[in-house]
Amino acid sequence: MNYLNNFNIDTIKVIDKSEYPTKGQKKNKITEDIDNLFKELDIKDGYVLSFHHHLRNGDQVTNLIMKQVQKLGVKDITLVASSLFPTNKELIPLLKDGTIKNVVTSYISGELGEAISHGELKGNIIMQSHGGRARSIINGELKIDVAFIASPSSDNKGNISGVNGTNSCGSMGYAIADSMMAEKVVAVTDSLVEYPNYPTDITEDYVDHILLVDSIGLKSGIVSGTTQVTKDPIGLKIAKDTLKVMEASGLLKEGFSYQSGAGGISLAVTSFLRDYMIENELKGGFASGGITGYLTDMLEEGLFESLYDVQCFDLEAIESLKKNPTHLRMSASQYGNPEVSAVVDNLDIVILGATEIDTDFNVNVMTGSHGMLMGGSGGHQDTAAGSKLSIIVSKLFSSRIPLIKDKVDVITTPGTTVDVLVTERGICVNPLRQDLIELFEEAKLNIVDIKELKEYSENIMGKAKPIEKTDRIIGVSEYRDGSILDYIYEVK
Amino acid sequence: MNYLNNFNIDTIKVIDKSEYPTKGQKKNKITEDIDNLFKELDIKDGYVLSFHHHLRNGDQVTNLIMKQVQKLGVKDITLVASSLFPTNKELIPLLKDGTIKNVVTSYISGELGEAISHGELKGNIIMQSHGGRARSIINGELKIDVAFIASPSSDNKGNISGVNGTNSCGSMGYAIADSMMAEKVVAVTDSLVEYPNYPTDITEDYVDHILLVDSIGLKSGIVSGTTQVTKDPIGLKIAKDTLKVMEASGLLKEGFSYQSGAGGISLAVTSFLRDYMIENELKGGFASGGITGYLTDMLEEGLFESLYDVQCFDLEAIESLKKNPTHLRMSASQYGNPEVSAVVDNLDIVILGATEIDTDFNVNVMTGSHGMLMGGSGGHQDTAAGSKLSIIVSKLFSSRIPLIKDKVDVITTPGTTVDVLVTERGICVNPLRQDLIELFEEAKLNIVDIKELKEYSENIMGKAKPIEKTDRIIGVSEYRDGSILDYIYEVK
Repeated sequence: MNYLNNFNIDTIKVIDKSEYPTKGQKKNKITEDIDNLFKELDIKDGYVLSFHHHLRNGDQVTNLIMKQVQKLGVKDITLVASSLFPTNKELIPLLKDGTIKNVVTSYISGELGEAISHGELKGNIIMQSHGGRARSIINGELKIDVAFIASPSSDNKGNISGVNGTNSCGSMGYAIADSMMAEKVVAVTDSLVEYPNYPTDITEDYVDHILLVDSIGLKSGIVSGTTQVTKDPIGLKIAKDTLKVMEASGLLKEGFSYQSGAGGISLAVTSFLRDYMIENELKGGFASGGITGYLTDMLEEGLFESLYDVQCFDLEAIESLKKNPTHLRMSASQYGNPEVSAVVDNLDIVILGATEIDTDFNVNVMTGSHGMLMGGSGGHQDTAAGSKLSIIVSKLFSSRIPLIKDKVDVITTPGTTVDVLVTERGICVNPLRQDLIELFEEAKLNIVDIKELKEYSENIMGKAKPIEKTDRIIGVSEYRDGSILDYIYEVK
Repeated sequence: MNYLNNFNIDTIKVIDKSEYPTKGQKKNKITEDIDNLFKELDIKDGYVLSFHHHLRNGDQVTNLIMKQVQKLGVKDITLVASSLFPTNKELIPLLKDGTIKNVVTSYISGELGEAISHGELKGNIIMQSHGGRARSIINGELKIDVAFIASPSSDNKGNISGVNGTNSCGSMGYAIADSMMAEKVVAVTDSLVEYPNYPTDITEDYVDHILLVDSIGLKSGIVSGTTQVTKDPIGLKIAKDTLKVMEASGLLKEGFSYQSGAGGISLAVTSFLRDYMIENELKGGFASGGITGYLTDMLEEGLFESLYDVQCFDLEAIESLKKNPTHLRMSASQYGNPEVSAVVDNLDIVILGATEIDTDFNVNVMTGSHGMLMGGSGGHQDTAAGSKLSIIVSKLFSSRIPLIKDKVDVITTPGTTVDVLVTERGICVNPLRQDLIELFEEAKLNIVDIKELKEYSENIMGKAKPIEKTDRIIGVSEYRDGSILDYIYEVK
């Protein structure tokens, strides 16, 4: 009953004793029979199915489930995957035969992205940020019919833990919104453990079915291949200069908070930061984001008070999550949902990469030099917007392709939220941040105008060749608040 | 946008660069100014306001907030409090002046309950179970406008922890649904701590405002007064016989799960169970519910594998929650929501009390001998329905008032979910459980017919005097699934 509007004490009826409940155990949730499970799920044309990417390129669940959908002849599925990896190239035939109509994701790499760029989707691709994805699911805009949660371990009631099981992945932050909001939730696991399974990332009250499979993933693919500090001297110089920028900003003080991506230069910044903190006896507050062993080391050394972990990038991070009580899990919503107060809003400094940047500091991390989809915002938009200081670290050229352009191919992150670009030829500061320019001038940093740096790089390599595209819009780059930043065009 | 229905790639518009977001910190959530906060909340006549009862009789938040509502002249509030205690007698004037119109709760004791029984509410009282409350909030039937969360500690963003702060209460299971579903959430705290506050019971993404007050509670009232093993020899005999019932049921085997209330006889059962488990080298799975030091001792002795804690009854429980990783928090939904798989569904044995029971095993724990509200289901309905074996432990008389009646005053828990009654004069088994009758006969337990036991007790004390009530229905006893079990009448 609706307690406010329909509650009328004069007409309300007491149930008859013949209708009293019978004691009874609820039905068994577990099955190994995918055919029977799909009968029960009754997935129809046009359904929205969701997946998470905590198993990264080792994930076997998305392909397995989507092939079952294909087998049943269901069409026009909207695939909502928090990210897609090279392993998902197996889904290309499902674009061609109409099983998958639309894709909503935050990151896509590999041949599937190329196929989509070549126009293979009957519908569209919507590229969201991690926080934007959580926003759209939590606020009900993006309604998920069935969420399939790859689960490193589950008990017989669906308590899911990311740190137990053969294919452990650590924090499961990107799957939380899906598990809370989807009409039906299926835990897909290869590791059935005793009740109750803890520490619990997703509790049984959110799980309707448990599908037991031989393997949810390949351990070798779960751990990211990107988590190594760069050895390139140019990259190391950029990282060193980035530390100078951080210092000059005045933000590097007791209790500061920090996030960096897992690219080689970003990790080098973290490594130099560690040395700096030890030397200066500086202790930070929290570090956040996808967590690597570099950060868990710093936690254990007492350099950071706590870690906020939405996703573990390596085995060290998973081990730390198991044992360190100050290594905290966070959901994607808690991380970056712009409609709530989120961890990114408390961030002092974030270090980010870029594929392209324009002279208004708009960044593209979504498409590569041929215009093909090969990335996505992930947390880029969210951390740039939430942090006090967002720094892009990048070399001026990548495989002879210049970083700085008049106009980036697809805007992933609006320049109004990007503060500083650090390159090997100098530091560009967004003119919106006069406060930073003053501080950096005082610190005698090598500030250069981004337009001049663009001209410099064009003088060396020439302008980038324009990308050959058709007139057909195949999707959009969505901002974290749901507005549309840019179109994505079909590539010839 | 709705990705399914309204997404039209041909008409979708990219935002103009002039509309790009500006970087900016979100607004400050903290205030000490209750008047200003209430201006912002703009609470209107007829609003639904919610509170939790983790501070029990020491809670000062419900009274404080409701008096502010009264001061502003707002009327017809529906007060949704997970439980109400003697301290809430301060709200009686707010019934009389129409500030509070309806009350929705799971337990009420003290003068406020008596005032409501005497018809002081303009509207109605709806008595829910803990699981039923979570159900109605989570599924959207019970819409909360503002949830005021008494918070033992919070940081400046609203990360709430129940184990930190002066007035720590431990697990905050009853506040989770409110924090997730209310339109606005206010953390009311007397202990502002550094960001991030962990372990976190409610995360910042669910909290809109933080109200800083001098004190949220009185420590002396937070810990329940009921958590002592009975010393009464009759109570101890009942407890011993209850252990025999448990043994004869065949459920006391490796990995069994267990819950008991915090009444004196229930605690004595737990105490005898501990001796039994040590003697028989028996190890249980989980114990659940409101957690006491008796259970945390057993956890630390290795007698239980884990604890599922929705509410801490004493300081030992709070301390254990801080330090034992196998002492797990659970939300009220996870505990007992009948629309999801919940912990109660995994329960082997539950030990419960009763104020009255009828010959169909229907139980009243809501009203006392004068018909006055003095309790409520709490988890009674939920655990009786979910468990494999629900046992009521009670003496045949309480202050010369007989336990067994032809008809209980208000049905709190349907007899179809109550399996066994253990009294000092024998053990009654619900005829629906022929399986148990056979097992108990085999074990030569003293089984008596509940009708005969009723006659026996009436022969000694006479029938209970009928309670004098008017014809006016003032509320209902709701079953956990939302159906209505019984009316609650005004007492003369």
